[in-house]
Amino acid sequence: MHPAPVDAAPIQHGGDLGRARLLFPGAPEPFIDLSTGINPYPYPIPQLPSDLFTRLPDQAALDRLAGLAAQAYGAPSGAHVVPAPGTQILLPMVAALAPTGRAAVLGPTYAEHVRAAAQAGHRAAEVADPTGLRNAELAVVVNPNNPDGRVLPRAALLACASDLPAHGLLVVDEAFMDVGAGGLSLAGDVARGNIVVLRSFGKFFGLAGLRLGFAVAGPALAERLRAGLGPWAVAGPALAIGAAALADEAWAATTRARLAQAVLRLDQVLAGAGLEVVGGTSLFRLMHTQAAPELFDHLGRAGILVRRFAHQATWLRFGLPAGEPEWQRLAAAVGAFRGGG
Amino acid sequence: MHPAPVDAAPIQHGGDLGRARLLFPGAPEPFIDLSTGINPYPYPIPQLPSDLFTRLPDQAALDRLAGLAAQAYGAPSGAHVVPAPGTQILLPMVAALAPTGRAAVLGPTYAEHVRAAAQAGHRAAEVADPTGLRNAELAVVVNPNNPDGRVLPRAALLACASDLPAHGLLVVDEAFMDVGAGGLSLAGDVARGNIVVLRSFGKFFGLAGLRLGFAVAGPALAERLRAGLGPWAVAGPALAIGAAALADEAWAATTRARLAQAVLRLDQVLAGAGLEVVGGTSLFRLMHTQAAPELFDHLGRAGILVRRFAHQATWLRFGLPAGEPEWQRLAAAVGAFRGGG
Repeated sequence: MHPAPVDAAPIQHGGDLGRARLLFPGAPEPFIDLSTGINPYPYPIPQLPSDLFTRLPDQAALDRLAGLAAQAYGAPSGAHVVPAPGTQILLPMVAALAPTGRAAVLGPTYAEHVRAAAQAGHRAAEVADPTGLRNAELAVVVNPNNPDGRVLPRAALLACASDLPAHGLLVVDEAFMDVGAGGLSLAGDVARGNIVVLRSFGKFFGLAGLRLGFAVAGPALAERLRAGLGPWAVAGPALAIGAAALADEAWAATTRARLAQAVLRLDQVLAGAGLEVVGGTSLFRLMHTQAAPELFDHLGRAGILVRRFAHQATWLRFGLPAGEPEWQRLAAAVGAFRGGG
Repeated sequence: MHPAPVDAAPIQHGGDLGRARLLFPGAPEPFIDLSTGINPYPYPIPQLPSDLFTRLPDQAALDRLAGLAAQAYGAPSGAHVVPAPGTQILLPMVAALAPTGRAAVLGPTYAEHVRAAAQAGHRAAEVADPTGLRNAELAVVVNPNNPDGRVLPRAALLACASDLPAHGLLVVDEAFMDVGAGGLSLAGDVARGNIVVLRSFGKFFGLAGLRLGFAVAGPALAERLRAGLGPWAVAGPALAIGAAALADEAWAATTRARLAQAVLRLDQVLAGAGLEVVGGTSLFRLMHTQAAPELFDHLGRAGILVRRFAHQATWLRFGLPAGEPEWQRLAAAVGAFRGGG
């Protein structure tokens, strides 16, 4: 194997500032990371008793977290919720719940779904249209979608689940549903047995380093996922912080409003520089320009990392700046870009 | 399914004080948890910058941790080390690295190995003698063993690996090797390709709530485990605390001596009450008595939880008390026991 030189390899995921600093060694610090869809206004971390670190995570705390997640996400009960150290680690386990066969991932979307399905033994590929999900043993939809924010209505997804072959499985990755429109989630529909919903904790709560996520599924599938994870998959600090955050409805409401405001400002900053936003959610915006490679480099040299896409060279995804200095630097940098639109 | 009443169900794992309080509702508090083999003198938790919680875990930090673990454990390099959120979650993934067939687990030992091997599709069972490992597609040895402290010499394990069928795999769970004799570990032997060593972080460093563990394996197997875990399996705080702790050789040396002293004191407390210790490591002692069920209950009513075993009714395992009040309560409670030995 020949290692690719650093500047030829696309950044496969957002959030890797170490790699950004190699790509743009002269950039001003601090680097501004807009390459993820993570809320820049994190849930305040409570005081953590030391026994959260020293003792094995407690079964009662795990059950309590599952119950609070069920309430927050609209799942039938805590028994339908499987806490995990992030949803990423769940992807191959969930893909393995379907009988091996064809896996169809509604694309373009988060690339790890195809990889995880292939790893579980499926013939996995992205499909461009929901009709391509028909007859797949494993159908995967990210809703709202990353990076373009495309939304499938709940009725369309339920119809998709009804069309699945026997033992087929519909996986709905609701990583960004916390900022989605009401009534879209399928978390309340998992009891029918062939739907698994994934919910990310770290994105909306701004705590991606904590590693916490959930699968919502019928009891039989939930039990198989629990067996795969074992009894102590979620760390003690994540159990405590997750429970506090998921129970805090006031914080969630305030944060949804705050993110909606912030993303409007992002739209204005980009529009003011003549850049066309083509989609997104309250946590990120996708823009389209023929000059995307030049804009990526221009921003990088200004110490601002955005997300580019290996197979969609005209796209860039922007996350939200954290504070006023970051907003000012972003506005100045995009304003100074003259690469065309 | 009929749920078992609480007092009839054996405690499957140590460390669940919630369950202990249900079993012994009148016991004095604070409950003393001696039911695990976790070091009661934890590595001091350093100040944690908030971006360990807010940002996605960094690839460079993960690589650095793997390198430090390789040095601490004697693995050939960081490329041979796969950090994970605890070794528990690795068990089914490691079992799936072997071709499906017969899995032999040298017993009696930690029950999760048979469960994980069965989950990976093997015909899994414990074997009482190392000769029973021969010709198994998956051979599993816990070394030093839990709960009896039995040790297999390195040469015997290497011979076992040589005897495996093609593509067979030897898994050596070295969860308690940090307090084992020098020269026993197989972490330096994984390059031959059919050996995977598991190392637990939380037990020796006393930070079981953090969820951190490692697989040490040849590069091909390590790559398959990395693919299964995905890019952000280990939380940011665990990356930082793990790196600090694994690099701290002075703390490790002091702690080994301290644990050796403490376990001697435990032996004396038990011997003083006429209780026979039959094995263990510096992190726990196994004792044998016909009166084990009565002693378990006696200690439980005194607010002391020890580990009992569903299939070895005459065994109890004792972890180390944390401080002088716990030592005094333990000595008083075992001294007051008159169940016979």
